Amino acid sequence: MKRIAVLTSGGDAPGMNAAIRAVFKKAVAEGIEVYGINHGYAGMVAGDIFPLDFKAVGDTVRRGGTFLYSARYPEFAELEGQLKGIEQLKKKGIEGVVVIGGDGSYHGAMRLTEHGYPAVGLPGTIDNDIVGTDYTIGFDTAVTTVVEAVDKIRDTSTSHHRTFIVEVMGRGAGDIALWSGIASGADEIIIPEKDFKFEDVVKNIQEGYENGRNHHIIILAEGVMSGAEFAEKLKEAGDRSDLRVSVLGHIQRGGSPTVRDRVLASRMGARAVELLRDGIGGVAVGIHNEELVESPILGKEEEGALFSLTEKGEIVVNNPHKADLNLYNLNVDLNKFE
Amino acid sequence: MKRIAVLTSGGDAPGMNAAIRAVFKKAVAEGIEVYGINHGYAGMVAGDIFPLDFKAVGDTVRRGGTFLYSARYPEFAELEGQLKGIEQLKKKGIEGVVVIGGDGSYHGAMRLTEHGYPAVGLPGTIDNDIVGTDYTIGFDTAVTTVVEAVDKIRDTSTSHHRTFIVEVMGRGAGDIALWSGIASGADEIIIPEKDFKFEDVVKNIQEGYENGRNHHIIILAEGVMSGAEFAEKLKEAGDRSDLRVSVLGHIQRGGSPTVRDRVLASRMGARAVELLRDGIGGVAVGIHNEELVESPILGKEEEGALFSLTEKGEIVVNNPHKADLNLYNLNVDLNKFE
Amino acid sequence: MKRIAVLTSGGDAPGMNAAIRAVFKKAVAEGIEVYGINHGYAGMVAGDIFPLDFKAVGDTVRRGGTFLYSARYPEFAELEGQLKGIEQLKKKGIEGVVVIGGDGSYHGAMRLTEHGYPAVGLPGTIDNDIVGTDYTIGFDTAVTTVVEAVDKIRDTSTSHHRTFIVEVMGRGAGDIALWSGIASGADEIIIPEKDFKFEDVVKNIQEGYENGRNHHIIILAEGVMSGAEFAEKLKEAGDRSDLRVSVLGHIQRGGSPTVRDRVLASRMGARAVELLRDGIGGVAVGIHNEELVESPILGKEEEGALFSLTEKGEIVVNNPHKADLNLYNLNVDLNKFE
Amino acid sequence: MKRIAVLTSGGDAPGMNAAIRAVFKKAVAEGIEVYGINHGYAGMVAGDIFPLDFKAVGDTVRRGGTFLYSARYPEFAELEGQLKGIEQLKKKGIEGVVVIGGDGSYHGAMRLTEHGYPAVGLPGTIDNDIVGTDYTIGFDTAVTTVVEAVDKIRDTSTSHHRTFIVEVMGRGAGDIALWSGIASGADEIIIPEKDFKFEDVVKNIQEGYENGRNHHIIILAEGVMSGAEFAEKLKEAGDRSDLRVSVLGHIQRGGSPTVRDRVLASRMGARAVELLRDGIGGVAVGIHNEELVESPILGKEEEGALFSLTEKGEIVVNNPHKADLNLYNLNVDLNKFE
Repeated sequence: MKRIAVLTSGGDAPGMNAAIRAVFKKAVAEGIEVYGINHGYAGMVAGDIFPLDFKAVGDTVRRGGTFLYSARYPEFAELEGQLKGIEQLKKKGIEGVVVIGGDGSYHGAMRLTEHGYPAVGLPGTIDNDIVGTDYTIGFDTAVTTVVEAVDKIRDTSTSHHRTFIVEVMGRGAGDIALWSGIASGADEIIIPEKDFKFEDVVKNIQEGYENGRNHHIIILAEGVMSGAEFAEKLKEAGDRSDLRVSVLGHIQRGGSPTVRDRVLASRMGARAVELLRDGIGGVAVGIHNEELVESPILGKEEEGALFSLTEKGEIVVNNPHKADLNLYNLNVDLNKFE
Repeated sequence: MKRIAVLTSGGDAPGMNAAIRAVFKKAVAEGIEVYGINHGYAGMVAGDIFPLDFKAVGDTVRRGGTFLYSARYPEFAELEGQLKGIEQLKKKGIEGVVVIGGDGSYHGAMRLTEHGYPAVGLPGTIDNDIVGTDYTIGFDTAVTTVVEAVDKIRDTSTSHHRTFIVEVMGRGAGDIALWSGIASGADEIIIPEKDFKFEDVVKNIQEGYENGRNHHIIILAEGVMSGAEFAEKLKEAGDRSDLRVSVLGHIQRGGSPTVRDRVLASRMGARAVELLRDGIGGVAVGIHNEELVESPILGKEEEGALFSLTEKGEIVVNNPHKADLNLYNLNVDLNKFE
Repeated sequence: MKRIAVLTSGGDAPGMNAAIRAVFKKAVAEGIEVYGINHGYAGMVAGDIFPLDFKAVGDTVRRGGTFLYSARYPEFAELEGQLKGIEQLKKKGIEGVVVIGGDGSYHGAMRLTEHGYPAVGLPGTIDNDIVGTDYTIGFDTAVTTVVEAVDKIRDTSTSHHRTFIVEVMGRGAGDIALWSGIASGADEIIIPEKDFKFEDVVKNIQEGYENGRNHHIIILAEGVMSGAEFAEKLKEAGDRSDLRVSVLGHIQRGGSPTVRDRVLASRMGARAVELLRDGIGGVAVGIHNEELVESPILGKEEEGALFSLTEKGEIVVNNPHKADLNLYNLNVDLNKFE
Repeated sequence: MKRIAVLTSGGDAPGMNAAIRAVFKKAVAEGIEVYGINHGYAGMVAGDIFPLDFKAVGDTVRRGGTFLYSARYPEFAELEGQLKGIEQLKKKGIEGVVVIGGDGSYHGAMRLTEHGYPAVGLPGTIDNDIVGTDYTIGFDTAVTTVVEAVDKIRDTSTSHHRTFIVEVMGRGAGDIALWSGIASGADEIIIPEKDFKFEDVVKNIQEGYENGRNHHIIILAEGVMSGAEFAEKLKEAGDRSDLRVSVLGHIQRGGSPTVRDRVLASRMGARAVELLRDGIGGVAVGIHNEELVESPILGKEEEGALFSLTEKGEIVVNNPHKADLNLYNLNVDLNKFE
């Protein structure tokens, strides 16, 4: 393979730039040229493709966002979109593609591979909800942003003896809430993966203040409900504390990536190039037990594929991501009273 | 004066701890004992008063919030509340008080002074809206928090070509919006002190994208309206860009104080002790043109008092705080196209 | 076990406070009382031991350093010291101990266990060089501090086209250098675990500038030699670039712990209590492949002990810590030119 | 004036990019084109000059360093160098220049003006030692970097009861030491502007530990002597505490500029363009008592010139920068014991 391309797709995540940089630099070491594709699959179809060079990737290891821009582009699920994209790759002499994004992006990578353009997926999202990896690029940074915010909120909640509901991102997954909850010393974590009763939360709040706490901080994963709704229901369930809601919002998607994310992104970017160099596509890179692994994106479950087709042609996820409930239990333990 | 007390009142602000520490340490140098009063005027009335020592203030210069806790306590506007508070001061042998808080707190300080307990006010609030000072303790930190947040939002808004409305605090004042707007390179600043038309904002957004901008960031002071309302009206006025709202919320009240706030708080705290040492009360410390100044809290306008009484006994503010509109104009200039 | 104690020993590391807090809070959940021992083994011998409470550990999850203070105390290697320490434990009714520190501290834990006072070791050091764990408490924070510093140095080195030698900590281990090198996009990493020639470094520097680089940053592990000596030898070997040395020094030991370190410390602290609760001592907790593990401190290699005694009574390390040389190779790859 | 240029000279400082950006954007608003000159006066002479555009300055408000690179170039003090530089300006049709740098750079600006190319100086240096301004661009950021470092050092010095000498930059000026000393709660500040005796320092250290301090932090301005030398002399004078030296070094020159520096740089950059627009050169912009001011670089003292020529043709500084000794005295006061 003499020339490959790289794109970012779906929601952006800190560390995407570090991954792009690693793809470029590793490819240089392998004697492979690298083109950047702007705006994800949309840019591929539109031919927004240009050669990367040292200047383009210089100083990007520490930058949040993605300098290749990102976009959602559902049209790439259709054959027509795929063929248009391949037309553009052909024009530029591109033989393989690295796709950094969520699992939606992986399906595009699968299609490209099936059409003879090997593509490798890298997990880039703050939500940590991608199949085939313990951690996604951007997760550690997002958690860090949340914890820095909660550290600030704790100052003011302590000064005023307030109860704070901090709504954090994560889509359907509780990972951001769990990690940030433990790390910020939250008094309670509410996630979609674990049932709870509002009456118990009210009781915990009361018990905390009775035991001398001067604040009560609840980390709420957005996958459960909104912070406003949670506050409403908490009051209905009898909470009488001085209650505030903080929705952290989009700050969680930006920021200079943490050490973990920079290293993870660099390792994964380099691995993607090795795979393409060896003619391997249709796989996604992950990290499992501290080791880089790759899994077929689509195939048989017993062969480790992330997704399989049922007889009816429906896509099933073989080993959906699961949040680490040990962290949930740990937090409960760390918030008991005698 | 052999023994004084210090309290924090109203909304908390980063740097309040640094001010308390300076009060304590300067008093030590002057041979004066210092007591801390928890929970502001409420704690004074309740007698929640205790001697400060080196251990209590150790390492507080860098801590957000206030370790003396803060509270609003409107009852102190009534004579009954004041007399109860004085009773408690008398019990502990306290002869003077430093009050760190907003202008509401200043009136309490005035009353204490009138009752023979000289009290000095220090301006502690993130909003920078207190009369008698160019800058309040906490303002620089709050702006810094906003700018760090906008730096993160910029990453993701750039990745996705989005328009962001960032709602920032400030009560009726546009200071936080102005400073954070300039410092974050915002494309537009909306403040209560300056009229605007939604049609113009829509035009600016369009013009920006047409001139190659890959995002549009609007800093909106909460004193104008909420971010949600602003977004609604922007759409009504014809905006078709990919619009998001981010309400920064309570993170703006916390965090380790900046250098500016630590130095300002330290200087003001020491000055308050000098004033009490010299038997001076009923004044508030401010900074004007880089110099510490003090002004009578209540009195004649021509004598520099912050507040005066009308013949009908109503309180008027003599020189209400004004935001620096030069910054507004600067930002407009920095966002023009050829 | 009804009452346990916790101490920190050796060099301090960010996250030690989070571990102490977790020990305390988990013990509360288990109905066990916790005492703090100041100044490590020295304080144990001196009887500087006091009951911990919620107030003592409040807000410590985010604090650098150790609020129990730390010290080296070689006298605890002697039987006399141990017996004195046990005397103090006995006085306070303490039945087990958690020791947070380096491998020197583990031997003290072993001795206490042998004397009938089960003790559990937790790996606390920034150097990541402790046997029996993939990561130590404090390592991620130290690397983060280094990377933030190198990010700053990169600004000024780029402005001036300079070559920077950044000396980082790590004692005999290259881990801090490796992780910070990858994460900061360093042009070269020099570690004790890998030979190098000064002539090659000089060549790399030249080649970089010839290929358009506007700076050259070398991360040097202190275990190799000092930055000053390295610079000297680089010049002798022919380097003619504008060369500067930056010794990061003690800032690497402090700072608010990162998310990783807070979570790791919290998990390990809770595990230590579970072990003591079950009467288990003489073991050290580690993390391996993302799972908490515990290993006998002293014993047979085939039983997983960290240390064994030879027939002559000498202590040998069974599986000494090894830096991840994949990171070294990755960095070489990421810094090649066509 | 239809076309101007901007360069950065001398040591780089955070905020220089924000100033360049403001020069560019304000010029756009005034209908003036802006060229960038790489590498300061050296680049001017070499003709390394190129048109700036929105893309070049995009996202630079928050970046440390200077994207125009900086260099010292003593040859520009000679007529020959100046004429060569002007030749290059003429080629590009450049009519005026903004010079961001230290007072050395101001003299180049003066010469250009005398030759008919109006040039305006902006004070860019971390040292805050430039005549004609209360604050320089970069100073607040450098102090912030120092304070963050000392906050970290305090963690570890407290854990181990250590005395730390922290050597900070500032060339001949004590400003960085004074501000960072107050803001970090240092126990002692040593600056060139104030005499001290080693015996007194030794006494202060002892007194502190006797009064229960668990560390002693001394901020030492590099203009006094090196940290190593200071430590040596402190030991000679009888200090017996556990003494460490930390030389913060080049991290002080980098980093994302603070709010203060971004706003100051933006205001000054815009003002420089207004001056050139009005045909004014040979002046330097400063900030005094919170207001932007400009002063003739060379001229009569009574007309406010920064520098004058003696009859013998020697340059004298009319009102050399002075550090604020009130901060020194404040720190002494904040570190007394009963």
